[in-house]
Amino acid sequence: MFRHTQQTQYNCAPDQPDALYAMKLQELIGGAYGEMTVALQYLFQGWNTRIPGKYKDLIMDTATEELGHVEMISIMIARLLEGAPAEQTSAAAAANPALAAVLGGQNPQHAIVAGGGAVLADSAGYPWNGKYIVASGNLMADFMANAGAEAQGRLQTARLYNMTDDKGVRDMLRFNLARDTCHQQQWLAAIEMLKADGLETLPVPSAFGTDTEYTEHSNEIWGLSDGTAGPGALSKTSVDGTLEFEYLLDPQPLGPIPDVPAADPLLYATVDGGSRSVAGGTAPASGSGGLLEKAKEALTGAEPGTHTKAGGKNES
Amino acid sequence: MFRHTQQTQYNCAPDQPDALYAMKLQELIGGAYGEMTVALQYLFQGWNTRIPGKYKDLIMDTATEELGHVEMISIMIARLLEGAPAEQTSAAAAANPALAAVLGGQNPQHAIVAGGGAVLADSAGYPWNGKYIVASGNLMADFMANAGAEAQGRLQTARLYNMTDDKGVRDMLRFNLARDTCHQQQWLAAIEMLKADGLETLPVPSAFGTDTEYTEHSNEIWGLSDGTAGPGALSKTSVDGTLEFEYLLDPQPLGPIPDVPAADPLLYATVDGGSRSVAGGTAPASGSGGLLEKAKEALTGAEPGTHTKAGGKNES
Amino acid sequence: MFRHTQQTQYNCAPDQPDALYAMKLQELIGGAYGEMTVALQYLFQGWNTRIPGKYKDLIMDTATEELGHVEMISIMIARLLEGAPAEQTSAAAAANPALAAVLGGQNPQHAIVAGGGAVLADSAGYPWNGKYIVASGNLMADFMANAGAEAQGRLQTARLYNMTDDKGVRDMLRFNLARDTCHQQQWLAAIEMLKADGLETLPVPSAFGTDTEYTEHSNEIWGLSDGTAGPGALSKTSVDGTLEFEYLLDPQPLGPIPDVPAADPLLYATVDGGSRSVAGGTAPASGSGGLLEKAKEALTGAEPGTHTKAGGKNES
Amino acid sequence: MFRHTQQTQYNCAPDQPDALYAMKLQELIGGAYGEMTVALQYLFQGWNTRIPGKYKDLIMDTATEELGHVEMISIMIARLLEGAPAEQTSAAAAANPALAAVLGGQNPQHAIVAGGGAVLADSAGYPWNGKYIVASGNLMADFMANAGAEAQGRLQTARLYNMTDDKGVRDMLRFNLARDTCHQQQWLAAIEMLKADGLETLPVPSAFGTDTEYTEHSNEIWGLSDGTAGPGALSKTSVDGTLEFEYLLDPQPLGPIPDVPAADPLLYATVDGGSRSVAGGTAPASGSGGLLEKAKEALTGAEPGTHTKAGGKNES
Amino acid sequence: MFRHTQQTQYNCAPDQPDALYAMKLQELIGGAYGEMTVALQYLFQGWNTRIPGKYKDLIMDTATEELGHVEMISIMIARLLEGAPAEQTSAAAAANPALAAVLGGQNPQHAIVAGGGAVLADSAGYPWNGKYIVASGNLMADFMANAGAEAQGRLQTARLYNMTDDKGVRDMLRFNLARDTCHQQQWLAAIEMLKADGLETLPVPSAFGTDTEYTEHSNEIWGLSDGTAGPGALSKTSVDGTLEFEYLLDPQPLGPIPDVPAADPLLYATVDGGSRSVAGGTAPASGSGGLLEKAKEALTGAEPGTHTKAGGKNES
Amino acid sequence: MFRHTQQTQYNCAPDQPDALYAMKLQELIGGAYGEMTVALQYLFQGWNTRIPGKYKDLIMDTATEELGHVEMISIMIARLLEGAPAEQTSAAAAANPALAAVLGGQNPQHAIVAGGGAVLADSAGYPWNGKYIVASGNLMADFMANAGAEAQGRLQTARLYNMTDDKGVRDMLRFNLARDTCHQQQWLAAIEMLKADGLETLPVPSAFGTDTEYTEHSNEIWGLSDGTAGPGALSKTSVDGTLEFEYLLDPQPLGPIPDVPAADPLLYATVDGGSRSVAGGTAPASGSGGLLEKAKEALTGAEPGTHTKAGGKNES
Repeated sequence: MFRHTQQTQYNCAPDQPDALYAMKLQELIGGAYGEMTVALQYLFQGWNTRIPGKYKDLIMDTATEELGHVEMISIMIARLLEGAPAEQTSAAAAANPALAAVLGGQNPQHAIVAGGGAVLADSAGYPWNGKYIVASGNLMADFMANAGAEAQGRLQTARLYNMTDDKGVRDMLRFNLARDTCHQQQWLAAIEMLKADGLETLPVPSAFGTDTEYTEHSNEIWGLSDGTAGPGALSKTSVDGTLEFEYLLDPQPLGPIPDVPAADPLLYATVDGGSRSVAGGTAPASGSGGLLEKAKEALTGAEPGTHTKAGGKNES
Repeated sequence: MFRHTQQTQYNCAPDQPDALYAMKLQELIGGAYGEMTVALQYLFQGWNTRIPGKYKDLIMDTATEELGHVEMISIMIARLLEGAPAEQTSAAAAANPALAAVLGGQNPQHAIVAGGGAVLADSAGYPWNGKYIVASGNLMADFMANAGAEAQGRLQTARLYNMTDDKGVRDMLRFNLARDTCHQQQWLAAIEMLKADGLETLPVPSAFGTDTEYTEHSNEIWGLSDGTAGPGALSKTSVDGTLEFEYLLDPQPLGPIPDVPAADPLLYATVDGGSRSVAGGTAPASGSGGLLEKAKEALTGAEPGTHTKAGGKNES
Repeated sequence: MFRHTQQTQYNCAPDQPDALYAMKLQELIGGAYGEMTVALQYLFQGWNTRIPGKYKDLIMDTATEELGHVEMISIMIARLLEGAPAEQTSAAAAANPALAAVLGGQNPQHAIVAGGGAVLADSAGYPWNGKYIVASGNLMADFMANAGAEAQGRLQTARLYNMTDDKGVRDMLRFNLARDTCHQQQWLAAIEMLKADGLETLPVPSAFGTDTEYTEHSNEIWGLSDGTAGPGALSKTSVDGTLEFEYLLDPQPLGPIPDVPAADPLLYATVDGGSRSVAGGTAPASGSGGLLEKAKEALTGAEPGTHTKAGGKNES
Repeated sequence: MFRHTQQTQYNCAPDQPDALYAMKLQELIGGAYGEMTVALQYLFQGWNTRIPGKYKDLIMDTATEELGHVEMISIMIARLLEGAPAEQTSAAAAANPALAAVLGGQNPQHAIVAGGGAVLADSAGYPWNGKYIVASGNLMADFMANAGAEAQGRLQTARLYNMTDDKGVRDMLRFNLARDTCHQQQWLAAIEMLKADGLETLPVPSAFGTDTEYTEHSNEIWGLSDGTAGPGALSKTSVDGTLEFEYLLDPQPLGPIPDVPAADPLLYATVDGGSRSVAGGTAPASGSGGLLEKAKEALTGAEPGTHTKAGGKNES
Repeated sequence: MFRHTQQTQYNCAPDQPDALYAMKLQELIGGAYGEMTVALQYLFQGWNTRIPGKYKDLIMDTATEELGHVEMISIMIARLLEGAPAEQTSAAAAANPALAAVLGGQNPQHAIVAGGGAVLADSAGYPWNGKYIVASGNLMADFMANAGAEAQGRLQTARLYNMTDDKGVRDMLRFNLARDTCHQQQWLAAIEMLKADGLETLPVPSAFGTDTEYTEHSNEIWGLSDGTAGPGALSKTSVDGTLEFEYLLDPQPLGPIPDVPAADPLLYATVDGGSRSVAGGTAPASGSGGLLEKAKEALTGAEPGTHTKAGGKNES
Repeated sequence: MFRHTQQTQYNCAPDQPDALYAMKLQELIGGAYGEMTVALQYLFQGWNTRIPGKYKDLIMDTATEELGHVEMISIMIARLLEGAPAEQTSAAAAANPALAAVLGGQNPQHAIVAGGGAVLADSAGYPWNGKYIVASGNLMADFMANAGAEAQGRLQTARLYNMTDDKGVRDMLRFNLARDTCHQQQWLAAIEMLKADGLETLPVPSAFGTDTEYTEHSNEIWGLSDGTAGPGALSKTSVDGTLEFEYLLDPQPLGPIPDVPAADPLLYATVDGGSRSVAGGTAPASGSGGLLEKAKEALTGAEPGTHTKAGGKNES
């Protein structure tokens, strides 16, 4: 359960309104790496965590803080929108390039839809959506995603910092940048903690192991673009010392030229020798060696077929 | 420029059709962490790279390979769909639970839209979209995203591996798992290479530095959820040794209770003392201390205002 | 079945072209509360109505009218786009702030994609989509949504009215505003009609009743934000007189601290004591107390389990 | 700023796992009228409110509570997914219709993507997005939307209640139904409070008034569908007594047959008399009566044009 | 303006309910090539047409008819959903494979969201959206799109026809198939009419001509995949006789190896020689040869640069 | 499998940066008819093709080329973005209308998200998505879609050509226009080839035939809009000579006034005579003539019902 205090975590007051900057700042609310993404990503990770205690606590602490960041930036945007032109202004714009820029560049939905408040969208007006978050149940995979998200977030905040010289806006962003630094470091530390606690190691998921995969292909850099770097482009050895990278200079495909089986005639896909005429009115009798039989056999596993596959070998 | 060989990089032939599994395997084509995501993410990163040579080569090599993975899985799905029921089947289903599962669970668009082929969507039928990729221009931030994406990708592939016992499908997935392992390790190695080459370090973006941010907040874990972990939940020191984490057990907000300025009356937002009556027909005269003036002043920076902000201090 | 007359319901001719305003007016075609939303929302409600006669007639009358509003605004936009710059114009813009605003602000797809016509998107260029409409089968719930949609629609139209002084545009909007007023009132009247006819009352759905829900929680305002309003913030009694509101000043959670059961090892979620090593190649034998058994039991309802729940009580 | 307690607001523990029901329950997390919608809708309304005190408090109280509902349902779903089949199961399904239903119907992303946890999507697997929320700055318009959302929410919860007989699930839903009842009533009461406080009345936005609109069309029901209801379908008078409805039995269009002006030749739209040949290489000289001039004139308002419009009259 | 008659254009009554088929039939309402797409595509084409008379009439006639098809299919779906299970059913499913298929496969939103009616989504539950339609202003380009859309539509309808043997459903589809045939033929005839009327010819847009493009590349089939077809794969001559196709067996790239200019240091993209340290606090002085100057020069066209380009030649 | 050469297919270097044009050019990367659409559309068509040889080769050749077009335009955009303002610029804009246009009009995500590179979105900032492509398995239907897509693509490229006078940009577009011409002609030639090879003819899908559909409705133009064109609007005969079009001047609906059956009481849809009270707690006993029985009967086809349908006749 959540509680809310009307005080914000930090200041969020601009010195002056700036409708153009309000539009840009939306990236930190509704962008793929904005505050809404990290807030909800961490919440779903926390709710999906099987380990009570320090990992879950760290996730829920950070998630709850990020909700407060969405709040700070939303209020900042409402304040930046004070006095944004809501009336007919073309005559005024004709005499004022700076106003023209605002008229051209502001997010029209700030006025028309939100009445001077923030929207849940990014700087291009595209709405935030639930596909931006990841909560896989595997903490290592998710902490890697988290560290990456905080890096993108701090990068975007740094760019936005340079796009204004409003002291009030910069005051808030200096706080946010510090928090991004902390969270970036924190998730990297949490990754090491997972290793130290024996809960996960590389490659993720470590419980699957590498026995099953074709390890002879686990270290190959396939040189499929004709850059000249070749061997030596990377360190010889992976960070954890488990792999020796190998650079394939002229890799050849291991699979055959595939064909795709003729589709069900009732789907009217084009096939060799002309499309078989199967008018809609006459469905093939089921039960007589037709498609249903085939599906049934496949599902019951009755006949494994004659295909034989060998690990790492070509199809034929 | 690209070239294509009709041979696939590796085998992609199932032993038997399985329409239900085809639906699940779509996650590896059109999911947020499927092959299309990594293929296009790496392509846009490569095209946006300012450094010719080893980094660009590594990115373009891997991008080009991933296009071939989309191909393998698309062909695999078309083959898995062979014989999927395309006719009226309720009578047959009534006698066959396994067929009932297929009828209920298969992606109907495999038949209706794609005529027995793959679609560019995930296992829930949601189409792939361009917001899944990131190419920020900052290689460290992007390589962190890449390593994270490969971890999620290998995790999903491992889960899908267990959902079938078809030897042909597993043959392909064993190859894919090995490639995911390689790429996961490769991007982690590339991160170290960036550091060794002096191109980037933590926190990203390192060229912004930490001088500007409020460093007194860069190491604080705000304990905003009431878990009991507290201090010691993380290592004391960040992985790179630059921060000593501090756990705030009862953090207090640093900002004041915010208010939002009264909006432009022409936006008809509700304000104290009743909404001012501003009929549509009578727009306020521009130029007489109205909103336009305010916006104009803000943009020309004429009056910096009287607000003073101090780093880390409350607004008022 | 529909019929169309080439005459529009009302005038839709601007006095002059205005590409910037055309972009803004898109909100009334493709926005979440634009004419397309109400047109299709009412159509689907009408087609899903179980009551022939006055309710269905009212819905279908209004739906059909709204289609004509989409038409009026689409034609208005095509006319506003007359003469929008389609050639290279940076030199001209350098001497003309008003033109600069147009160049910066117009929707580029009006020219590139639609060749000077309207698009099916909102003022931020985001396409209209089918999730904007609701047709639940319950007329009270839907009429409440309709009244709300007409209120948002009239609000947006009023805002847009102030953003132009083109007499032709305002002529059309004056008509549209009147229709929004009518429809806002009409759905509120229809809600009262449903009550008077004994078809539905509050809370929706009234046929479910309130016997089943925990009525001891039906009147509580949980004070989870620290504003000072407290008791008296609302009237004591609900509009229909069925509830006495109670304001909880310091509400405590009623649930316990939850844990989440350890996931299937084949999903490789992180669990306490280290992730159990479950290589992909060796699936757990089904039938021996494994997951399948569990699912099967759950579905057949064989074992109701030992959990006991009491309404309104804590879990444990 | 927010705080979180690990206790949930109410119980959220099922008696038994049920993967099919978990899929359906997603509607209450990520559906257009699910808990995420109301939580974020109320938060953005609160942050955009210009009136400190009771209205803002009520909004923020309710918003904060709804975040806790997302939490309860997310944890419920993770628990319902315990033991969902993660391995190859077609042989087992062949013998078990109930298992077949689960295999066919469960959301595959619950296993593949979320590792046994909830996703931020609805019951059809479509992700939640920011267009579901509305925060217009006008409290009456927004409270109408809120009451409507709570009505749809209670309706969907009631339907979901009937789709299970798990006592633990029903225990949670009984609590949620009560909260939906409370919030439905609360927003209706708040609408009356706005009227009583003189802040807003009908039609929204009341500050715009009805003087400007063509009031002769504010009371007409246009009979554009051939249902037989006609006059008397509605009460004669609007709920607030300001309008006498009039039913037009055979309404005629008020506008003329519109034409659309010939587009810029550089857009290659098809026009009468053959498309004018305007090769790409030779752009029309700007400055010579071309399009730029036209746009410039339009923007500077130099020539108001000769069109005259009269309210409620035809164009020509 | 539109009018509606409550009679449907044709019958839309199934013999029996079938919730699974209702889910599939959604493709014809909300799919990319469903009736909503063609209805709205034609409407926007009609409203954007510059030629009054036969072309506009044909478009508006067909658009209006397609609205009636959305109606027929929506009502058909509501009827197919009669009796779909809305209560707890796992025990019943355990004994009934056909019911299990329904439980697994039906669109859960048909019950939970729409209360037994159609939704505006496709057979995978993905909502219809405005990007499905095209109305470019160029009638030839649009009629080609229309003919293609009708072909996909008839193909999908034919597939759906085979998936049921309900006589009532088939009765409606037989009518729809006939209309798809008519419209497919009609748009192809309209393309010929455009040519005969001298309004447009190939390649679209013909008013642009082919003088400007590099005609030496207008007839080349670049053999970039290693299939063996080579010359002769196509007819030698284009359908309109204006091109002689040429098959390039081993085409070489015409462009150089590109590099991308070093980005603005304030964007913190990774560049050679280490990322330049540009802390946020110290923005480069504008006006001193910085980026602003560069942009200004570029826009005013002051310095055309020293790059020379020759048609069909390499960059350097 | 794919290979990549770092040389681009053709030049892609602008003479000068132009951030505004970069925003517009995004339409050719991420628009519905941009290069990404045709690249992936052709790839999925190729992978789904059942006919090895010339058709598949032609598709894969073209698909592979289009990938190289995405590359060219992405690099062009990165170069056009060189020097786009990344710092605070309102003072400068106040003195410079051209700069004001850039500030207002540029895509803010080019700087904030992509660090000076292209994004996978269109000119309005909307991301590319997988619903833009079609690969139906039926080659005629798909080649019609392809020819239409190339026509829209060439139209948009021609429009964009006129929006710049940068020689380097125009150099690239002249090449692209030629390729669009070639592909437009090529798909039309391939359609004729399919006919000549006897694989498909009109109407698509020809294997379904026209026997089943109600051919008496296959030639009717329903005059549902009141345009005056009437008979003679089209040629009398279809292009392939199989149909004689007939224009219905005053077509009457063939279907009855439909009603929709009363929904399941547990869905709480509004029905005549008041909504039946069905509290959540008391589910109707299954097995006693309830809904389950009905669904079961429907699925087993036990009772065909008494409805009789006649082709082309009214329902009743």
